[in-house]
Amino acid sequence: MKGFAMLKIGATGWVEKEIPQCGPMDAICRPIALAPCTSDIHTVWAGAIGDRKDMILGHEAVGEVVEVGSLVRDFKAGDRVLVSAITPDWNSLQAQNGYAMHSGGMLAGWKFSNFKDGVFSEYFHVNDADGNLAHLPEGMDLGAACMLSDMVPTGFHGAELADIDFGDNVAVIGIGPVGLMSVAAAAIRGAANIYAVGSRKICADLALEFGATDIINYRQGNIVDQIMEKTHGEGVDKVIVAGGDNDTFARAMTILKPGGIIGNVNYLGEGESISIPRVQWGCGMGHKTLRGGLMPGGRRRSQMLARLIQTGRIHPERLITHTFHGLEGVEQALMLMKDKPRDLIKPLVLID
Amino acid sequence: MKGFAMLKIGATGWVEKEIPQCGPMDAICRPIALAPCTSDIHTVWAGAIGDRKDMILGHEAVGEVVEVGSLVRDFKAGDRVLVSAITPDWNSLQAQNGYAMHSGGMLAGWKFSNFKDGVFSEYFHVNDADGNLAHLPEGMDLGAACMLSDMVPTGFHGAELADIDFGDNVAVIGIGPVGLMSVAAAAIRGAANIYAVGSRKICADLALEFGATDIINYRQGNIVDQIMEKTHGEGVDKVIVAGGDNDTFARAMTILKPGGIIGNVNYLGEGESISIPRVQWGCGMGHKTLRGGLMPGGRRRSQMLARLIQTGRIHPERLITHTFHGLEGVEQALMLMKDKPRDLIKPLVLID
Amino acid sequence: MKGFAMLKIGATGWVEKEIPQCGPMDAICRPIALAPCTSDIHTVWAGAIGDRKDMILGHEAVGEVVEVGSLVRDFKAGDRVLVSAITPDWNSLQAQNGYAMHSGGMLAGWKFSNFKDGVFSEYFHVNDADGNLAHLPEGMDLGAACMLSDMVPTGFHGAELADIDFGDNVAVIGIGPVGLMSVAAAAIRGAANIYAVGSRKICADLALEFGATDIINYRQGNIVDQIMEKTHGEGVDKVIVAGGDNDTFARAMTILKPGGIIGNVNYLGEGESISIPRVQWGCGMGHKTLRGGLMPGGRRRSQMLARLIQTGRIHPERLITHTFHGLEGVEQALMLMKDKPRDLIKPLVLID
Amino acid sequence: MKGFAMLKIGATGWVEKEIPQCGPMDAICRPIALAPCTSDIHTVWAGAIGDRKDMILGHEAVGEVVEVGSLVRDFKAGDRVLVSAITPDWNSLQAQNGYAMHSGGMLAGWKFSNFKDGVFSEYFHVNDADGNLAHLPEGMDLGAACMLSDMVPTGFHGAELADIDFGDNVAVIGIGPVGLMSVAAAAIRGAANIYAVGSRKICADLALEFGATDIINYRQGNIVDQIMEKTHGEGVDKVIVAGGDNDTFARAMTILKPGGIIGNVNYLGEGESISIPRVQWGCGMGHKTLRGGLMPGGRRRSQMLARLIQTGRIHPERLITHTFHGLEGVEQALMLMKDKPRDLIKPLVLID
Repeated sequence: MKGFAMLKIGATGWVEKEIPQCGPMDAICRPIALAPCTSDIHTVWAGAIGDRKDMILGHEAVGEVVEVGSLVRDFKAGDRVLVSAITPDWNSLQAQNGYAMHSGGMLAGWKFSNFKDGVFSEYFHVNDADGNLAHLPEGMDLGAACMLSDMVPTGFHGAELADIDFGDNVAVIGIGPVGLMSVAAAAIRGAANIYAVGSRKICADLALEFGATDIINYRQGNIVDQIMEKTHGEGVDKVIVAGGDNDTFARAMTILKPGGIIGNVNYLGEGESISIPRVQWGCGMGHKTLRGGLMPGGRRRSQMLARLIQTGRIHPERLITHTFHGLEGVEQALMLMKDKPRDLIKPLVLID
Repeated sequence: MKGFAMLKIGATGWVEKEIPQCGPMDAICRPIALAPCTSDIHTVWAGAIGDRKDMILGHEAVGEVVEVGSLVRDFKAGDRVLVSAITPDWNSLQAQNGYAMHSGGMLAGWKFSNFKDGVFSEYFHVNDADGNLAHLPEGMDLGAACMLSDMVPTGFHGAELADIDFGDNVAVIGIGPVGLMSVAAAAIRGAANIYAVGSRKICADLALEFGATDIINYRQGNIVDQIMEKTHGEGVDKVIVAGGDNDTFARAMTILKPGGIIGNVNYLGEGESISIPRVQWGCGMGHKTLRGGLMPGGRRRSQMLARLIQTGRIHPERLITHTFHGLEGVEQALMLMKDKPRDLIKPLVLID
Repeated sequence: MKGFAMLKIGATGWVEKEIPQCGPMDAICRPIALAPCTSDIHTVWAGAIGDRKDMILGHEAVGEVVEVGSLVRDFKAGDRVLVSAITPDWNSLQAQNGYAMHSGGMLAGWKFSNFKDGVFSEYFHVNDADGNLAHLPEGMDLGAACMLSDMVPTGFHGAELADIDFGDNVAVIGIGPVGLMSVAAAAIRGAANIYAVGSRKICADLALEFGATDIINYRQGNIVDQIMEKTHGEGVDKVIVAGGDNDTFARAMTILKPGGIIGNVNYLGEGESISIPRVQWGCGMGHKTLRGGLMPGGRRRSQMLARLIQTGRIHPERLITHTFHGLEGVEQALMLMKDKPRDLIKPLVLID
Repeated sequence: MKGFAMLKIGATGWVEKEIPQCGPMDAICRPIALAPCTSDIHTVWAGAIGDRKDMILGHEAVGEVVEVGSLVRDFKAGDRVLVSAITPDWNSLQAQNGYAMHSGGMLAGWKFSNFKDGVFSEYFHVNDADGNLAHLPEGMDLGAACMLSDMVPTGFHGAELADIDFGDNVAVIGIGPVGLMSVAAAAIRGAANIYAVGSRKICADLALEFGATDIINYRQGNIVDQIMEKTHGEGVDKVIVAGGDNDTFARAMTILKPGGIIGNVNYLGEGESISIPRVQWGCGMGHKTLRGGLMPGGRRRSQMLARLIQTGRIHPERLITHTFHGLEGVEQALMLMKDKPRDLIKPLVLID
């Protein structure tokens, strides 16, 4: 089978591989919709997870089941399925502790395009099909469905980590596709004012459509000053970090009220450490909590978030700005993510 | 001063009383908007809280401060204020434990028209002004503002007690004004399908506008059967009880999934007990939780929920179906609540 | 193989069956320690879970692995193991939602001596060995280890459901072996006064040893009156129900403070319903929460609770009052549980 | 009246002041037991809270009420009382949000020897007597009672912030008097192995008595290596930070498992920032949470923790290694805290 791979750090290309074997609990799928992710870019060009050789990229997909293992109960060949980017081992100690995404080790629930080949291929392997696939709801837009792999659950996890409550004023730092879904999540979690920090017009416009009340453009001045002014010097109740870099946390801590929470869903790919300013952290006594975590994956998560699309609560298909056709399209789509033109939010590849 | 009072169980009328004294932490206000509540009806005609003699009714108001005590920091005569129906003693042991509404004893944070005169009067007394008043935000609709006394915080408490999570399917039983706000709360808390149980068209229409996906009319069949059919036999993740009677809980337990929660905000005014069906409760082992509680009151609560109006997240002014003018209007408004014509959701009385 | 079975409602006896098949994720074990449970008694003589024909009884065991399936990673023949009474399907939707004990349906994580043969046999089958077994810690007393199947995790779940907090005054209703472990759990969860409700001296003595501060003997008067007197009319912060009947909940609600929680771990085998007194429940507004649930099972749970034995925090071996030797001993042990002599807490059967 | 004061940064001495005025909600007390705190040392000699002129020191006391304001309900002259080091404004917005210790601003619930004169004086002022005093239980040891001002609630808050759960392996970094109470708290919160990090023998011995299972002496090697070895490379479930410096957090993050929490109760008096190592923090995705906060204060907190002394669950009087008599003793006691001889844990001053 053909797949689009990371050949080594800094290089991509098409590779030819054997179709993966299907274990008793597993499924083999073919993709019907795919999307590249910023983390594919970091993986290849920043070496964020270390070197990999000829590893097929991609972890966002809608698929069709081609084969299932003998122990699989709820899926069969021909089923169209939502595929979670994170596919945990559900009987692991970590999953039994509520942290399935760390099954087998920190972040080790992330398997596609990390520990094994990803989804940018004619066929891909899904471990624990009953636990990690979900049926594609009839009539669901494939763009919206494909965003259920990663963009929606990761963005929503930001709102969960920050524990948004009724009436909270919230800053969302970073309004790429994940941050935009964090804005949507904060809005349907009960936030009041949502200060969305970003600079590109297409993202800002969608942030407003998804529920942001204010756009904070870091090109127009320090974001701390802007947010403190908007909040009359009070700061915000919660912060969701969905972009920026290691210095973002010092800013987030500064605008945060005592009793507040920072929820991070931005993968930090470089640098030695992040720095928490002592005084703004209340000398260790301010009840300003810092949390960050990989999105929860798996079937139930996909199903619950799919319901929000089905009932019209969220519209992740609005993220799709560019559509390609055919598996070959993943190469162009990935390059688009790398180049990040000003009119891009997220590309989608449809495979008839 | 003149006030509209419960003279005794079953009888109301206008009374003349002294203007209340203002303690060091307190405020005296005059009403600028008032609304009667179903609990005023239960208080007078069902004797739900026992007998009272010449007690001025009402606990939903927007006011103007007339006088403040010497220890009050943040309010002064002339301020226009949101008034919480529940006005706790914030230094009580119960408030320190997170249950301010029970300060001094179960339900004892409810003082207006219960332990002291209510707000249907030329002047009314507010204990702990700094803790229990909030400034009326500039430009806020007085109908919406008046709903912040009780309808919004009570309705929202239903969603809090039921702990609505992203993608939950939720039944809201009862869609009077409180239940309608529970529908709105569930929707902006992240619910997916919301099954709103009621029968009057005006309420059903507003439920759909506030985010319900389905109306379950109990006049058209058993609500258990209807909801089980809608959910393909699965039942719902959470139930908010905002109406019905003591038998409602058996139905709620039946439609609830294991791991689910019933959040009750309906005051149960009569009967010996409520009954939980053993088998549907999983023989005591089904992780189906029953919770119920009086709304949290106080200033912060008013402020946080006011933000949701200011940011356009909720529209409680849509509850107001009838408007009266002048303090005398409270009598008519109350009778309207008692008679409950089919076009009524909530009446409002505006004063000058 | 030979096993001790429920032949039908009201009758037990030895049966001869095929050794169960081992699926790819499963294990076959032989018992090295066994204990009967009150629920075995209810199963046979009260028909609590319905009729069963020739079903081998028992769900409390320490075992030795005899065979494992091809997908099992962490266990091999010869390993000595803790066996959880509840053995969930960890990739189920319910487990992904934090309620593994209801995997596949309410209470359906309970498989031994319910949906399949139990452990009172020469060999028994464990589904998902990696998820549901745990290695027997070196040197652990077999009596203590056997109590990790059910008595410890169920008793501790009572304290979890009731959410015991530092300084809480707690009533534990029922001090059979489960209730005794609830007493121990409440004590090492930070409870202050623990009012243990029971009548048998041997249980009362052990309750005091495990951390109870007071014994409330229902033979010496109404428990509500006794506890209200001990608490100077205040009532308790939390209640754990580990015994009694359907009427127990009305008493529990009466002694509970607003803001309190009842955590039930007593299987209710008969009756139509339980009854919650309206006024004591605060007319639905008192924030008195009712929760009840089957114990969480699985490997991590066994490991975490085993650590408490290893560090000397709890001493469940103190529950064992009678010891038998050889598989045949389970019959005598079970009859002892049925007859409940005054010197019995829990019998143990050791199988060399 | 006479008081022992910080004259300026680096200097202490006795001052003569007016007896403070008693507001309507307040009390004036005279001390009957006092203890100096490490933070008094930091306040004077490190300038940790900035400069102060002639400010009376001290915030740990047992007192006798001398006068109460007109609105005080539950206390009267002659009552012997527990005095919380943190005395919030209970009707503040922050207290209504569950963060009373930040009432009026971050850390602003800390008033004694910070914003106003402390307790090392013939008389001291307590704001909101009903909210912030508690009756001294009959027969309670004065040393134990005095530890309820700060050492017990602060140490216990470490266990609360770290959210210790049944069977957790816990590191407690720092075993001065606060850390020792964190050890005790972790033990009665259900921890299994408790790794207590410290070096002085008197503290290590008491840590073992209070429930530590292992002493990790940083003088005998890197604490990260020692703890990783003890936990077979797994690390710990939770960390309580009750000592150390800004670099402690990097170590704490390194030994912490994914899904774990660091709970800090150590006041960080100097340095620009604390540093979180990126990779050990899971690149922002490891679900390793950092929390830190000032102890909750107030009457209910004192009462709940007092119950733990009354029921023999904790023994904070064991912290007292040196006892002085008479108000003058506070000078010697403070100098002892400054010099920190190897046989010191905590000094106590008894006043007639």
